[in-house]
Amino acid sequence: MTNQTEIQPKQEVVLTGDRTTGKLHLGHYVGSLKSRVQLQQQYETYIMLADVQALTTHFHNPGLLAESVRQVALDYLSVGIDPERATIFVQSMVPEIAELTIFYSMFVSVSSLRHNPTVKHEAQERGYEDLYYGFLGYPVSQAADITAFKASLVPAGEDQIPHIEQTRRIVRRFNELYAPVLVEPQILVGERLEGLDGGSKMSKSLGNAICLDSSTEEVRTQIRRAKTDPARIHKTDPGHPDICTIYGYHCIFRNEGSEEIREQCQKGGIGCAACKELVMEAIEEVMKPIRERREMYKNRPKDIDEILMAGTAKARKVASQTMSEVREAMGIDYFK
Amino acid sequence: MTNQTEIQPKQEVVLTGDRTTGKLHLGHYVGSLKSRVQLQQQYETYIMLADVQALTTHFHNPGLLAESVRQVALDYLSVGIDPERATIFVQSMVPEIAELTIFYSMFVSVSSLRHNPTVKHEAQERGYEDLYYGFLGYPVSQAADITAFKASLVPAGEDQIPHIEQTRRIVRRFNELYAPVLVEPQILVGERLEGLDGGSKMSKSLGNAICLDSSTEEVRTQIRRAKTDPARIHKTDPGHPDICTIYGYHCIFRNEGSEEIREQCQKGGIGCAACKELVMEAIEEVMKPIRERREMYKNRPKDIDEILMAGTAKARKVASQTMSEVREAMGIDYFK
Repeated sequence: MTNQTEIQPKQEVVLTGDRTTGKLHLGHYVGSLKSRVQLQQQYETYIMLADVQALTTHFHNPGLLAESVRQVALDYLSVGIDPERATIFVQSMVPEIAELTIFYSMFVSVSSLRHNPTVKHEAQERGYEDLYYGFLGYPVSQAADITAFKASLVPAGEDQIPHIEQTRRIVRRFNELYAPVLVEPQILVGERLEGLDGGSKMSKSLGNAICLDSSTEEVRTQIRRAKTDPARIHKTDPGHPDICTIYGYHCIFRNEGSEEIREQCQKGGIGCAACKELVMEAIEEVMKPIRERREMYKNRPKDIDEILMAGTAKARKVASQTMSEVREAMGIDYFK
Repeated sequence: MTNQTEIQPKQEVVLTGDRTTGKLHLGHYVGSLKSRVQLQQQYETYIMLADVQALTTHFHNPGLLAESVRQVALDYLSVGIDPERATIFVQSMVPEIAELTIFYSMFVSVSSLRHNPTVKHEAQERGYEDLYYGFLGYPVSQAADITAFKASLVPAGEDQIPHIEQTRRIVRRFNELYAPVLVEPQILVGERLEGLDGGSKMSKSLGNAICLDSSTEEVRTQIRRAKTDPARIHKTDPGHPDICTIYGYHCIFRNEGSEEIREQCQKGGIGCAACKELVMEAIEEVMKPIRERREMYKNRPKDIDEILMAGTAKARKVASQTMSEVREAMGIDYFK
């Protein structure tokens, strides 16, 4: 008989990633990267450079991808993703993801994709009159990403909730149609960081973002220009922290000090310049170790390529095992 | 200097195949199989067991595929497809096809697929109220099948014309966006064979087909029951060959004799039974060597599996070469 204490619980899997359409910023850090650094301690972690998903909107400019794949990888290493603990891999180099996408697409209805609120919103934002087939189907591709690694946890922004819901439906349908091979994932919704212009989420395409490779001086200039309470002219005017972007940053970057700032702001006891100074210091504390790690890696492009190649090889091995189980479940492993 | 006569023209490529949803019939033979047997003499020929495409309509019954893949392969060998000359392969075992499908889907609009007349007609025929994403996109998958092998010629039925047009558009768009890697295919439209009930194309799902594995007696019974000119009661009544299925068979299976039959029928000089007898003989001439080859192969399932495995390995090699060129053209061969 096996001793119960000897049985190791099967390690749970995290899958997450980013579209490789440019450098990452503080919004990514707050929303997801920070928690990935913690999760890699306890979970089998896969982090995907989502270049195929990037093609859904950037197919006419694929030159961008090669640059971006490395930029995002450098961002990962800089924030503290440890390639010994987490597997960083390139999506387009795992063909099993393409195969799973094709199989799942057989039983996902066009209308469920058309009514996905995030797809609708993004299509509107990009001004698409007619959708491309690949863009419409990117939630199916995400389901393939997640299930290829049997991930049970996906740290992502709240805009991803409909996609994870779609993945869960696909998993249930597959397991019911064929055999219980796939794992239903949960989303771990990250914090949302407002952009410097106030009112919208920090986003590179909106030009309101602090990139993770910014220097101290760049961060200071951006914070100085950041929007605050527009009704406040003199520093003795009472402020409205709830509509102030900078107050939001206090809450996120210097949790314990934020209550005092709220009070000081509301009674006109602190001016915007001094208030921003405190936020800058807190952001600097986040940015300093990121910059130090970046210094370490940035002149070692070969090492980064090796990390990505090794990660991709490991990811393929896992995805290919899932693929075998999927083929067996579907009865299409003809020559076994 | 190279002598002009020494330069071998690059051999042109044929790609064709069948959905693996059941045995093939005489309509397949007349429409495509017959010409494949000739084409394999002059062209580099790839013949695909289209199991992924079969899943677009049979995803809930994948057990059917394993049986059907072997049935169709046996039909191929029986009609005279020579595995030494033609490469027979299984679609789902060439992941490059899935990868190409994903890449092409980035720049194919949903509306161009929705307006594809064959997709519309089939959706209507199957009574689909809501389309599945994979079904809507199967012309993109076909473009991947064809271009993976750089086929320039696709022998197929006329219902495939819109799909080949879609493939040609995809090829032009890809070559213009990235680099001139892909080949624009031409369709070689095969003859259409009417079903035994008259009025619609021979089709297994309509129950009006003569399967290629039918015995002499089965063929005779089916032909005897086949619909002819309904206005003709007595054998001396003048007939209307242009609306008679059996006259159509005369044209296809006994070309030179058909003009005489037309005259005899129109003046009531030959009865339907005698007329059918001539057609049966002609069909028997086609079926006899098919039956003989089937006898040879049918007790050698291992040999058939080996033919399919070897064909699939060869197909993968070619598709993987195309895939390398595609990656290079798109600038996503990151670690080369």
